[in-house]
Amino acid sequence: MKPTAIYSIPEMRKVVRSSKGTIGFVPTMGFLHDGHLSLVKEARKKADVVVVSIFVNPTQFSPNEDLQSYPRDAEKDLAALARVGADYVFFPTNEMMYPADYKTWVTVDELTSVLCGKTRTIHFRGVTTVVTKLMHIIDPDFMFMGEKDFQQLKVLQQMGRDLNFRTEIIGCPLIREKDGLAMSSRNVYLSADEREKALCLNRSLRLAQQLFAEGSEETKNIVSQMQDLIEAAGGKIDYIEIVDPETLQSIPVAHADSKVMLAVYMGKTRLIDNMCISK
Amino acid sequence: MKPTAIYSIPEMRKVVRSSKGTIGFVPTMGFLHDGHLSLVKEARKKADVVVVSIFVNPTQFSPNEDLQSYPRDAEKDLAALARVGADYVFFPTNEMMYPADYKTWVTVDELTSVLCGKTRTIHFRGVTTVVTKLMHIIDPDFMFMGEKDFQQLKVLQQMGRDLNFRTEIIGCPLIREKDGLAMSSRNVYLSADEREKALCLNRSLRLAQQLFAEGSEETKNIVSQMQDLIEAAGGKIDYIEIVDPETLQSIPVAHADSKVMLAVYMGKTRLIDNMCISK
Repeated sequence: MKPTAIYSIPEMRKVVRSSKGTIGFVPTMGFLHDGHLSLVKEARKKADVVVVSIFVNPTQFSPNEDLQSYPRDAEKDLAALARVGADYVFFPTNEMMYPADYKTWVTVDELTSVLCGKTRTIHFRGVTTVVTKLMHIIDPDFMFMGEKDFQQLKVLQQMGRDLNFRTEIIGCPLIREKDGLAMSSRNVYLSADEREKALCLNRSLRLAQQLFAEGSEETKNIVSQMQDLIEAAGGKIDYIEIVDPETLQSIPVAHADSKVMLAVYMGKTRLIDNMCISK
Repeated sequence: MKPTAIYSIPEMRKVVRSSKGTIGFVPTMGFLHDGHLSLVKEARKKADVVVVSIFVNPTQFSPNEDLQSYPRDAEKDLAALARVGADYVFFPTNEMMYPADYKTWVTVDELTSVLCGKTRTIHFRGVTTVVTKLMHIIDPDFMFMGEKDFQQLKVLQQMGRDLNFRTEIIGCPLIREKDGLAMSSRNVYLSADEREKALCLNRSLRLAQQLFAEGSEETKNIVSQMQDLIEAAGGKIDYIEIVDPETLQSIPVAHADSKVMLAVYMGKTRLIDNMCISK
């Protein structure tokens, strides 16, 4: 059954406040792929009512980024959500989310100044602010986020704890295409050639795992070999770092729970990916 | 009947989630006076369950301010709250509100950089952050704030709208001592001599009203005469401004709804007060 599409904040509030049982929430920017749908399936398992938001949030894009070209397909998204059984899809507009006199921001220190935060300087402020707003409108018991955006997940979990949100923020596994490319709405930007070469991201992460399994622990050495692999495939590296999964700080010596994090440009398209070094 | 004192966040959550009807919330820093109690009475009228928090919030004090000396008297506060009929009093600790790895802040632009925000640079960030936390813990239908802290009220109402809090934030009239001094927990800092001289704040505000009633509209002229009155009484002016009550921006020509806002040091004690210019 097709989910009910909701286009206003008061209507969204009314629906969740009058519904019975627990609420599971999946915030998205739409153009849904199987990664998103895996979150909705998880919400379906855990909550009585499943709400998905589709909103390309302007405040998380810098002026030089791809806000205008970000892919959109509401009809296809609704059809996909019908298959996995979402109850409500919330489509707020820029005007209702950020009226002319908008002035308020939620920020998280430290976790947002590393990795993607180094170049995407306003990105996480936009994410934490819009998710705060959506959580206030939807008041979910559970919110589901993909580990593809691992830094985002950690930032939002920190925010949730710090600000005493009642919502449990649940990270779900990154989903890959059959050939290993991490699913992302931005993969649609890739030319056939770039799409092929983009496999180097996943390959470099598996190389890191292999090196660690073989006894390499010095992260400088592991990163350097990943770099060579990616550059040989034509990728332009934004960052490759091996970090502590809680602090997101780079570490000199890898541990079993260390996360390998990377952002790489294939042509003009910036892709991110990550993997635990030991599994 | 004495209200129930609550000392932990999970316990506070449990109490409000299991209570029936609407929740009215009055956030305070304790050392309660009749201004605070008027808010509790208003909450009692409007809500089924009344929760008062008492927390001297460290993040709204700069290092050079009076966090350590801020007056405290929990027993007297509980007795006063028993008289006006609060149901629950929440006493969080610094440690539970700001654990060691605390990283998240809520900020409001523009409204916080004028008036008190010019000298108290981190003050409003601390206020908006702690009130966000308290609203998440208590989930009130209504929150009651005094107009004594008019800028704070406006900042929090902006935050409430911007972040889609479901809570209605209600401003209540400033309460004065019989001789006209605005009630404040900080009045206890004043020596007998300073206490007497501090009446110049209220007098200067009434002078502004009188000048406006007599036809003065140029704010520069009104402020200048207030200045003379306060300085003659030995007050050291932080600011006197006549502002638009919505934007809090200084205006050159006063209107009937303009607010006269001031902060004045009497000795070492910083006092604030405000009045609508026309009533």
